[in-house]
Amino acid sequence: MRTEGTGFLRARRPEQKQQRYAAILDAARELALRDGVGAVSLADIAAEVGMHKSALLKYFETREEIFLRLAETEFGEWAAGAIAALSTAGPDPRQVADVLANSVADRPLFCQLLLYSPLTLERNVSLEVVRAFKQAVNESLQQVLPALRRALPALGDEACFDLFAMSGIAAAGLWQAAHPSPQVVALHAEDPHAARYPDFRATLVRFVRTYLTGLLNE
Amino acid sequence: MRTEGTGFLRARRPEQKQQRYAAILDAARELALRDGVGAVSLADIAAEVGMHKSALLKYFETREEIFLRLAETEFGEWAAGAIAALSTAGPDPRQVADVLANSVADRPLFCQLLLYSPLTLERNVSLEVVRAFKQAVNESLQQVLPALRRALPALGDEACFDLFAMSGIAAAGLWQAAHPSPQVVALHAEDPHAARYPDFRATLVRFVRTYLTGLLNE
Repeated sequence: MRTEGTGFLRARRPEQKQQRYAAILDAARELALRDGVGAVSLADIAAEVGMHKSALLKYFETREEIFLRLAETEFGEWAAGAIAALSTAGPDPRQVADVLANSVADRPLFCQLLLYSPLTLERNVSLEVVRAFKQAVNESLQQVLPALRRALPALGDEACFDLFAMSGIAAAGLWQAAHPSPQVVALHAEDPHAARYPDFRATLVRFVRTYLTGLLNE
Repeated sequence: MRTEGTGFLRARRPEQKQQRYAAILDAARELALRDGVGAVSLADIAAEVGMHKSALLKYFETREEIFLRLAETEFGEWAAGAIAALSTAGPDPRQVADVLANSVADRPLFCQLLLYSPLTLERNVSLEVVRAFKQAVNESLQQVLPALRRALPALGDEACFDLFAMSGIAAAGLWQAAHPSPQVVALHAEDPHAARYPDFRATLVRFVRTYLTGLLNE
């Protein structure tokens, strides 16, 4: 308990508070990548970063706020990566689809948070935290949109948004299919043909290609 | 306690056990349709059906088994409805897409269970329960497949499976987007243009049309 007390005194200085804030986010990210977002509790994060739960809750409202802040960061970093990759993609739509799908598939935490954000994270935080999250997501999308339009001049704004949104929904769902429960893994060991969509990246690339073909042929 | 004891004695007869089993599933279905699958606990189901949790666990392994059994039923009923609707659909692919999308959109519990099955339900039950569920899903899909192939002769078996799978993943994700948290509802009240995909059925129809166009133009 002595250490915790000393730690808390230290963290009164703004730069030390900032370090703690970042350490909590880092711990949550590491645990989520190892165990899956759904399996990580506030107590797990507190133990990983070496704080009491009560001290941790001076930095974040809830467990869900921690993951929603990680989702903001993931959206921003995904957008930056996608813009860079799209700048040299096209005009072959298949190449643009591959770049877009891979920009998502490269980010396993992002794929999980795309599912959990509407499902649980946006439910267990204040209106202000949701507002900040939605603004950050919107800004990221507004930054990527021109890059996608440049790469695919034939696609309108609404179709570009559909491509982002449905690629995200597909990534969230296909991630679950490619990371089944131990029980399903055991079933697939008995009958390997029963495993559908085991290769997450290849399936997502195939989906985005097909869906983009549909958008371009409507 | 007296009533519970009497009820349990009564339920020793097989037909009464069967009635209890069905009553538990009915209660879970009602609660999930009212509050959402994620919000319904085993205690809620026990209270709704008027049993003790311990008595309920003589019928089902876990809360998750209850919902997985409901998912089996939903898959079977969806398949029967889709087969009937597909028998008069086509050859216009847009008409087939509409029939398929509406067969899913007509079933709000199905849309939720498509999300929760891989996410949580298949994780908290025994191998035997998962095996029975997967077999039931596979049988349902194998029954619908010929009906879809008749309606869309140009589509191969693999593309037909992709159409089912991605329509299901899209339905699961779009359901979440169309049923946001109270916080997100409050944000949308401030700025109605911020609400994306509020009309679940229309958005799913549009997605299935576009994706099918892509499958037919690959």
